[in-house]
Amino acid sequence: MRIAVDAMGGDYAPAEVVAGALLAVEEYGIETYLVGDEAPVQAELKGKSNGRIKVVPAREVIGMGEYPVKAVRRKRDSSIVRAVRLVKEGSADAVVSAGNTGAVMAAALLELGRPEGVDRPALMALVPNTSGYTVLLDVGANVDIKPHHLAQFAVMGSAYASSVMKLQAPRVGILSIGEEETKGNELTLSAYPLLKKEAVNFIGNVEGRDVFNGRADVVVCDGFVGNVVLKAGEGLAQAFGMAARPGLENLDYAETGGALLLGVSGVVVVAHGSSKARAIKNAIRVAVAAVASGLVQATADGFARRTGKGVETINA
Amino acid sequence: MRIAVDAMGGDYAPAEVVAGALLAVEEYGIETYLVGDEAPVQAELKGKSNGRIKVVPAREVIGMGEYPVKAVRRKRDSSIVRAVRLVKEGSADAVVSAGNTGAVMAAALLELGRPEGVDRPALMALVPNTSGYTVLLDVGANVDIKPHHLAQFAVMGSAYASSVMKLQAPRVGILSIGEEETKGNELTLSAYPLLKKEAVNFIGNVEGRDVFNGRADVVVCDGFVGNVVLKAGEGLAQAFGMAARPGLENLDYAETGGALLLGVSGVVVVAHGSSKARAIKNAIRVAVAAVASGLVQATADGFARRTGKGVETINA
Repeated sequence: MRIAVDAMGGDYAPAEVVAGALLAVEEYGIETYLVGDEAPVQAELKGKSNGRIKVVPAREVIGMGEYPVKAVRRKRDSSIVRAVRLVKEGSADAVVSAGNTGAVMAAALLELGRPEGVDRPALMALVPNTSGYTVLLDVGANVDIKPHHLAQFAVMGSAYASSVMKLQAPRVGILSIGEEETKGNELTLSAYPLLKKEAVNFIGNVEGRDVFNGRADVVVCDGFVGNVVLKAGEGLAQAFGMAARPGLENLDYAETGGALLLGVSGVVVVAHGSSKARAIKNAIRVAVAAVASGLVQATADGFARRTGKGVETINA
Repeated sequence: MRIAVDAMGGDYAPAEVVAGALLAVEEYGIETYLVGDEAPVQAELKGKSNGRIKVVPAREVIGMGEYPVKAVRRKRDSSIVRAVRLVKEGSADAVVSAGNTGAVMAAALLELGRPEGVDRPALMALVPNTSGYTVLLDVGANVDIKPHHLAQFAVMGSAYASSVMKLQAPRVGILSIGEEETKGNELTLSAYPLLKKEAVNFIGNVEGRDVFNGRADVVVCDGFVGNVVLKAGEGLAQAFGMAARPGLENLDYAETGGALLLGVSGVVVVAHGSSKARAIKNAIRVAVAAVASGLVQATADGFARRTGKGVETINA
């Protein structure tokens, strides 16, 4: 398996990114392409390079503050665009970047495209619960969405839980303020009947507490709510020194390994901007698991199954 | 001080409500009016009544599933309406109910009214942080709101932090997905410039983690987001057995004592529906603190100060 890594992305690039890639190559038996400014990347490799680590030159860097779509369109020789294109060309199986999240998403959308039926890709996080992990999406890609986007997130999240986590009929819930169908805001109230019609195991609304208690396998929400809940959980664990408790390591982004971008035709992992080597290594682990389980095909299959249920007209 | 208590509200009424009121009378040296069906309430009192506990008869009960405004308008002799009216008439200084939240809010709005400048009252919760408490609002009264409502929540929350918590220039933040003014959803992006103009110490956007780390004294958000974050925090603490840690007792609603309804012309506390005696007692404690510190006047003063800043036109 070959993973393209944006060597210039994140606060500690290229040093920590290169170090993380070296760890991943050892631990997961994969090959990596380190994409970025050749001289500093080679310097960080300090001769530790071998047949399983290749440096792919990219002369431009997209900054954290740049406007994503514009930057991706203009900087064709940036490390982000080059890394994503390795996946498009079939040279790599997945891409990992700790760079500008919006730019990674834009490059993924523009270069890789979406499976039929996906209007908006979503960022997915794995949140630890008492018996495993809750698939939470969207955690930040789309802040203002329509009800049919939530229905699509349900299909994507369900495909992940089935293929990568090997769950049978994963339970999908809408994050809301009460279990009853009548509880929620305009978005969730309108999404509820749409999810009933989807080819997923919809269990209705779930509440904030259910993100951490395992009541649902997949929880869908808009990217604003998901981002706030995810960071609130991290903040609570950190503030009260609970990150070291068993099962809670993964509220630490360095362990979580970053967010997976679902709903694009390729495996794309967005690592935290302040990732150090361990976080980069774990982000690569998330990519490896998604590739190994055939996530992209499973997602496409999930959306293909929708057609038979007549939901296409809903999304028109 | 005299507190009106809805003796029929909540899953364990009237037994646990009466028990909680008895505890509060002992502990806080107050008087209470127990409002509800006289015979069962007297039976629970078992002669423990004294000059400081009075039973006020109300022959109707508003159920948890009833449509709030309709129920409040029709059931004039319900325990909720009667209890709120004791505050309106000046017989009680505050009201506490573990009954139908919507009905309590509707009764408060209809009977007590709002200070000039308040469009929508909000439910406020005290969330423990590393150095004290964060005032979080709205936690469920208003799920779909406009930017100027967030500005009003900032004024209410600031008035609470100043008067009851005795904070000088409490720091007010908008709950969002990034600190930059350009990060957020349609609601928070539009609210940001409005909060800049308010007579509050606005520190900009805060993130999910900041709800628990003390970066802000007051955090404003819509009632959907606030409810989800509050319950996510409770859920995380419960799921991982952290509720017993120092400082975390108050993620347990039994300790929090329920949510205070801000932006009505009276002190109204909504206790959790599954409150037992200790939770009722603590809800009464929240009411006592608000009355003792002159919260209602402080809130009215806060809104009166806005007029001088020319924000009235914004809210038109």
